[in-house]
Amino acid sequence: MISNDTIVALATPSGSGAIAVIRLSGQDAITLASKFFRSVSGKTLAVQKSHTVHLGHIIDQPRIIDEVLVTIFKNPHSYTGEHVIEISCHGSLYIQQEIIQLFLKNGCRMANAGEFTLRAFLNGKLDLSQAEAVADLIASDSEASHKIAMQQMRGGFSNEIKNLRDELLNFASLIELELDFAEEDVEFANRDEFYKLITRIIHVLKRLIDSFAVGNVIKNGIPVAIVGEPNVGKSTLLNALLNEERAIVSDVAGTTRDTIEDEIVIGGMAFRFIDTAGIRETQDVVESIGIKKTFEKIEQAQVVLLLVSSIQLAVGPDAVKNIVIEIEKIKNKFPQKQLIVILNKIDQITTEELSDIIGHLTPHATHLIPISAKTGIGVEQLTDTLLNLINTGALRNNETIVTNTRHYDALLKAFEEIQKVKYGLDSELSGDLLAIDIRQALLHFGEITGEITNDDLLGNIFANFCIGK
Amino acid sequence: MISNDTIVALATPSGSGAIAVIRLSGQDAITLASKFFRSVSGKTLAVQKSHTVHLGHIIDQPRIIDEVLVTIFKNPHSYTGEHVIEISCHGSLYIQQEIIQLFLKNGCRMANAGEFTLRAFLNGKLDLSQAEAVADLIASDSEASHKIAMQQMRGGFSNEIKNLRDELLNFASLIELELDFAEEDVEFANRDEFYKLITRIIHVLKRLIDSFAVGNVIKNGIPVAIVGEPNVGKSTLLNALLNEERAIVSDVAGTTRDTIEDEIVIGGMAFRFIDTAGIRETQDVVESIGIKKTFEKIEQAQVVLLLVSSIQLAVGPDAVKNIVIEIEKIKNKFPQKQLIVILNKIDQITTEELSDIIGHLTPHATHLIPISAKTGIGVEQLTDTLLNLINTGALRNNETIVTNTRHYDALLKAFEEIQKVKYGLDSELSGDLLAIDIRQALLHFGEITGEITNDDLLGNIFANFCIGK
Repeated sequence: MISNDTIVALATPSGSGAIAVIRLSGQDAITLASKFFRSVSGKTLAVQKSHTVHLGHIIDQPRIIDEVLVTIFKNPHSYTGEHVIEISCHGSLYIQQEIIQLFLKNGCRMANAGEFTLRAFLNGKLDLSQAEAVADLIASDSEASHKIAMQQMRGGFSNEIKNLRDELLNFASLIELELDFAEEDVEFANRDEFYKLITRIIHVLKRLIDSFAVGNVIKNGIPVAIVGEPNVGKSTLLNALLNEERAIVSDVAGTTRDTIEDEIVIGGMAFRFIDTAGIRETQDVVESIGIKKTFEKIEQAQVVLLLVSSIQLAVGPDAVKNIVIEIEKIKNKFPQKQLIVILNKIDQITTEELSDIIGHLTPHATHLIPISAKTGIGVEQLTDTLLNLINTGALRNNETIVTNTRHYDALLKAFEEIQKVKYGLDSELSGDLLAIDIRQALLHFGEITGEITNDDLLGNIFANFCIGK
Repeated sequence: MISNDTIVALATPSGSGAIAVIRLSGQDAITLASKFFRSVSGKTLAVQKSHTVHLGHIIDQPRIIDEVLVTIFKNPHSYTGEHVIEISCHGSLYIQQEIIQLFLKNGCRMANAGEFTLRAFLNGKLDLSQAEAVADLIASDSEASHKIAMQQMRGGFSNEIKNLRDELLNFASLIELELDFAEEDVEFANRDEFYKLITRIIHVLKRLIDSFAVGNVIKNGIPVAIVGEPNVGKSTLLNALLNEERAIVSDVAGTTRDTIEDEIVIGGMAFRFIDTAGIRETQDVVESIGIKKTFEKIEQAQVVLLLVSSIQLAVGPDAVKNIVIEIEKIKNKFPQKQLIVILNKIDQITTEELSDIIGHLTPHATHLIPISAKTGIGVEQLTDTLLNLINTGALRNNETIVTNTRHYDALLKAFEEIQKVKYGLDSELSGDLLAIDIRQALLHFGEITGEITNDDLLGNIFANFCIGK
């Protein structure tokens, strides 16, 4: 998989902007760039120091393609660990293409997805979990997902795994040493200390494995089901939640957000709002299919918002009674889910009506929030409640959180092997059999950081990157 | 309009890419960046040399926002002529926003559209026509438009104007000097030489003004009307033309093209294809409205493609006769327009049929091209013909071409004033009156390069830029 060729790709988003950056990496990067770059200073790139920037022109004789800035990074002091050239050109698509074409025609190859980061990994600039964090970092769209990716990229997770692996490796060597002296019946590895280590590893692995539930939710957004009849104000509520966030976003002119439908970032956490039909009792076959679907969607959610119109409730006690039935139905069917009852449109009923409704509902709802999505009353209280219900303790405490399915799988497998080791110790298994299980556990640890790897695995991981990274 | 504040903006296209570049410019750019950048080397940015790149982290205590590369450009050796900092961060929208927000909260202001280039102009790094060329360069989408913008940005046009202006200014001074010695009746300005200069200026202005027709077409695409009944293969033809070009574009993975509907770049020139209904004789009122519209569209076009199906023509002499009538109708109504008759679907008729049709049509059509849009036969001949019909002599000869309406207007006004000066010379007008007309002409020259300007004008020009440039 290691190759000596020089790769080229656009590193900035495609489209028109003020500037674009084209990146070259490989042993010929500087030589190739020198060939087509005429510096204003007159000096060739080859004599320039690493980490310097040079104004000049990209020229495909006799044609001047663009006035550019060229930055030079010399092996090994670059992102990939190879010679790297970054060309900052004017942002026209035509110019970007011409420059890339020029290098493709003259000895460069188009970079594959993630190939720059793959080379960084192969050259020992990053371990595998750090490399994976680069992709997560680029994809991060909320404070929480950004924080986790950043932590992982800076090596927090790898270090934790590496330390455990080193300690385990140490014991493995001692036990394997015993095997060489099998006939003398010595014990180099202190079994008590080894048992303590295994217990500690099990504890850490359990914490990491458990953190995946949180990590997954942070990475993909917290699923929230909105249950409500038509006309109770679902879309107004979503807009109200969205607007509060948009106000921040819109300050940054020139940065438009690719909105995923109904994914809203609140207080740094991404929430995925899942729209459902209501669950009102009905004899209608079609509607009861709708209710079944609503239940399926609630099943996927972590939080349930039951949205009701206080205008409808103000009509009389029967309406309130129906809502109480709905609340109890959800609570019975999903005792584990967090339920928030939202009383919308309170700007359109009297204070007496409101206090009457609240009086009736309070005994049934742990979280009852009166709002007006239209005027914004109560929306902040709702977002506060949402954030409080989400268990982000691990995030706040800067604990390592696992977000990557591949890591999760490797941790589960390591956990299984370590359990076997523990069982082996408990039952005073012989050293040679213990050693096999330890080696297996070490293998799974190594898979996470990339100390143990293969081409297929690398291919899969880096195929998910964008080209240019 | 000159301000001392420090501005910040995203310089790369919005969206997700491997990296994004955020740009700061202003007297506090380095100080501000130092405050939130912790270099891996431990050194502060303030002590670093201009044109150097530094790896480190952007930190909003205690939060690490991203690992970044920071490039430093010190006043006056930067694009704007001020201190400039470029931050190359990971391409996540979240990170871009957080970094921009960080600087907005700490003394930076969001840059207005084109403000970096405006500052470059105000600081004398570019003249006005060069600054305008920057926007044209970013917008360039074909080899021809790119070439003109590049030429203008490198000062070709400005120099031509500046030289004329300097010579004219010289004579203006001499004539004004004469006024001081009015009673002595001396002539410092040699009238013969002055007359020669004026004639030369008129010649150059005329060439520049005439070039605008070419320039405009290059900048906006050459309008080509396609005339043809339904089912003669119009969209197949457009796809065939497009595919030839796309084959080049698609090599550059990661760069997607924003296609303007039916604008196709052929041989470096942009062609705008305008679809029309046919112009076949009809009694139907609705259809005759269609014919009227077709004629209106042909009116806007520079080239007319009459597309006919050879299958329909192979039916018999009546069909051929109808087409001959159409050809003659177009030639009579639009004698100035270039007409290409395209015989499509030749893969579906016999050679005898084809030679028979060609025999009948050749006397009427200067350009008759048999093709099969489906199989690609003849498409290259068509593109060659299209390119030959377009007068790109000026482009090939590296002559200055005016593409900017503002320049065109100023040139027209200068031309008018210079004509007055010539008339004045012819009629031996007195020096004081001559001087007034010369000053007016100088004013219009100065408007082009920005030697004479005002805030409104600058506001208008730079409002058309993107933010970040």
